[in-house]
Amino acid sequence: MLIHSANQLLTLTGGPQRGKALGTLGIIEDGAVLVRDEKILAIGKTAELRAAYPNEPLQDAAGCVVMPGFVDPHTHLVWGGDRANEFEMKMAGTPYLDILAAGGGILSTVKATRTASIESLVAQARSRLFRMFAHGTTTVEAKTGYGLQTATELRLLKALLALEEESRVDIAITFLGAHAIAPEYKDDPQGYTDLVCETMLPILQQWWETHAPERNLPFVDVFCENKAFDLAQSRQILEKARSLGFPLKIHADEFDNLGGASLAAELGAVSADHLVRTSEADIAALAKSNTVAVSLPCTPFGLAEKDYTPAHKIIEAGGMLALATDCNPGTTWNESMQFVIALACRAMKLTPAQAIAASTINAAHAIRRADTVGSLEEGKQADLLILSVPDYRHLGYRYGTNLVRQVVKRGRVYSVDVGYYRTA
Amino acid sequence: MLIHSANQLLTLTGGPQRGKALGTLGIIEDGAVLVRDEKILAIGKTAELRAAYPNEPLQDAAGCVVMPGFVDPHTHLVWGGDRANEFEMKMAGTPYLDILAAGGGILSTVKATRTASIESLVAQARSRLFRMFAHGTTTVEAKTGYGLQTATELRLLKALLALEEESRVDIAITFLGAHAIAPEYKDDPQGYTDLVCETMLPILQQWWETHAPERNLPFVDVFCENKAFDLAQSRQILEKARSLGFPLKIHADEFDNLGGASLAAELGAVSADHLVRTSEADIAALAKSNTVAVSLPCTPFGLAEKDYTPAHKIIEAGGMLALATDCNPGTTWNESMQFVIALACRAMKLTPAQAIAASTINAAHAIRRADTVGSLEEGKQADLLILSVPDYRHLGYRYGTNLVRQVVKRGRVYSVDVGYYRTA
Repeated sequence: MLIHSANQLLTLTGGPQRGKALGTLGIIEDGAVLVRDEKILAIGKTAELRAAYPNEPLQDAAGCVVMPGFVDPHTHLVWGGDRANEFEMKMAGTPYLDILAAGGGILSTVKATRTASIESLVAQARSRLFRMFAHGTTTVEAKTGYGLQTATELRLLKALLALEEESRVDIAITFLGAHAIAPEYKDDPQGYTDLVCETMLPILQQWWETHAPERNLPFVDVFCENKAFDLAQSRQILEKARSLGFPLKIHADEFDNLGGASLAAELGAVSADHLVRTSEADIAALAKSNTVAVSLPCTPFGLAEKDYTPAHKIIEAGGMLALATDCNPGTTWNESMQFVIALACRAMKLTPAQAIAASTINAAHAIRRADTVGSLEEGKQADLLILSVPDYRHLGYRYGTNLVRQVVKRGRVYSVDVGYYRTA
Repeated sequence: MLIHSANQLLTLTGGPQRGKALGTLGIIEDGAVLVRDEKILAIGKTAELRAAYPNEPLQDAAGCVVMPGFVDPHTHLVWGGDRANEFEMKMAGTPYLDILAAGGGILSTVKATRTASIESLVAQARSRLFRMFAHGTTTVEAKTGYGLQTATELRLLKALLALEEESRVDIAITFLGAHAIAPEYKDDPQGYTDLVCETMLPILQQWWETHAPERNLPFVDVFCENKAFDLAQSRQILEKARSLGFPLKIHADEFDNLGGASLAAELGAVSADHLVRTSEADIAALAKSNTVAVSLPCTPFGLAEKDYTPAHKIIEAGGMLALATDCNPGTTWNESMQFVIALACRAMKLTPAQAIAASTINAAHAIRRADTVGSLEEGKQADLLILSVPDYRHLGYRYGTNLVRQVVKRGRVYSVDVGYYRTA
């Protein structure tokens, strides 16, 4: 198949974009992509590719932007229940302790998740994954973390494997048994930390060999924050995970700076995520490392807070910046990377080009998939979007709706905004 | 047709919601609506209506919220060109004067609009109207105002009549010849004001009698702001319009307080819109009047500014608050009232219930359509939404995507998120 006549074809070639290189789109005007058997075979000008491949089935992208599918490198895709009631209480100014007393907070999601069947968990997550895909996300990272007990955490892993199996989306899986202190250990955070290290991680390793031997090992992540895991406990968990061969991620500096970002750099974590309270020293440490800085602007937006990741400081320091939704039931339930881009432009003053690179090639790097997705290059997976806009700047400029016309996943075309209406 | 088994049916009955009454949803659990010939014939519990109308064709809304279609009471639906490039410059910190020098600002839209054919204007607006409808807006206000010369302003009116004729959406039309000082009068704002009063408004009156004799007169609106129309000029235009029988609207206090809100109250305007810099005295004047306060939170969001309408002061004072998108090419290109609700909750601390009432019954009141739309009541138009969520609080809580499953417009059902995908 030859996708041709794109007004702008964004290639994003050249690998992850560090520091001020962020925003290098590699635009080909009147561009075309030749797709064969799930992969990209060639890229270039429409005239050249049409001449070289005259009998290829055509997919017209005239007047459109063609670009790599979005990679969303931080989501909590699978959970039970919802917290709509808690949202209303927050907006009405209810104090957090009253919300907790009314059964709110992360532990309410843990409770709903523990009692949910795997079928119910998969069904709920399916609708979210469907929305993500329809908004152009072709690869997504997804975490466990609402079990906080071995059996439920494993059920969440099973749900994620089932979701990938049945869906069109590639899922990079992360084990986040250390998402919060389990309620059974509320007065003994160290006890829960030891449980994660001595019981959960070894079981995870065995389970993975049995259930997903052909896959790379999942990431292991930890929520390094006050009232969750302190710096020493975070180090303990990540070092144990590393010793077992797991690649690392960390939730750092969302509400307070405990030093998680520098820990990530020191341990060679693949990414450090959130990074709102990150200090200049932490930013410098990240910039010197290969750890990707993943900003989650929807989290402060979702919570109606005013501070965001100091994105420009990260860029100035030479760090690698990526963007993600953080889709979760407590702080931000948004599946669309297009909205993340629009928000990142406004709240962190990224240009549309910077936000696009942070949502594709750098996001792929944040989950170690930059070798197969995140840019349009010969040999990579044919994961790409045809947007119903003439210029890439419409991403960012426009928001609140879906600008995707077609999602191409492993070479197959899925239409989105065609057939919106149907008279019943 | 009997729409039945709604988890929550939001009726919004009882008329416009003033002051602290805002947010009265009138919820019927396990609710049903009987629709016949474009209208609502009955509302009640599913069991009762199914018993009373046993042979009615059924539309299942099990597990869903059913509510009135959104009314969007402030949009600039019809324009030529776009300003994506200007958005990028703004986010990159380019000074406003440099943007103007590069051909940006409202006059660039005026230029593109003046040179566009009516077919092109209709085609561009059609895609926006389509997005609005797909996101649940069943009635929309739409303004002229990118012509700033009689012929183009009339072409915009023609485009709006054509759009209503071909579409499923009801359009309340507003004449905004006084949107900015026309470039030909840049050194003579009073001269342009006189042109609006002495030439455009009388021509508008005649034109309307010829082209739309069966319709109510359009609203006449003015942009009361520094660098646009000062308070005296705004008064001159509105008083002239009133003397010709036109109902009034005003853009007031978006960037500076010139007294436009109090002027609106004094002149009996149907609405005063924007209201970011509105003083306590202006708020008190509005609250004593029947002028609806229309807040446009997407405008500061779109511009990445930090100040929003003091919504709670308006509520405390006993005013009538409505919400709208303000969809336009310069400050905010978003078609979705669902996003307006989500933003209003966070930026102005409305509850989902308050934001919903402000987007339905109060929004209908802001365009004088509360007699036919904005609530689910016997005899009103059958304009309603079936949302794929179990609780109304998901509006606000979730954002960035489309929660509408079906739009029912004048009794006909249009599916939205069914058939998202189609393999090509």
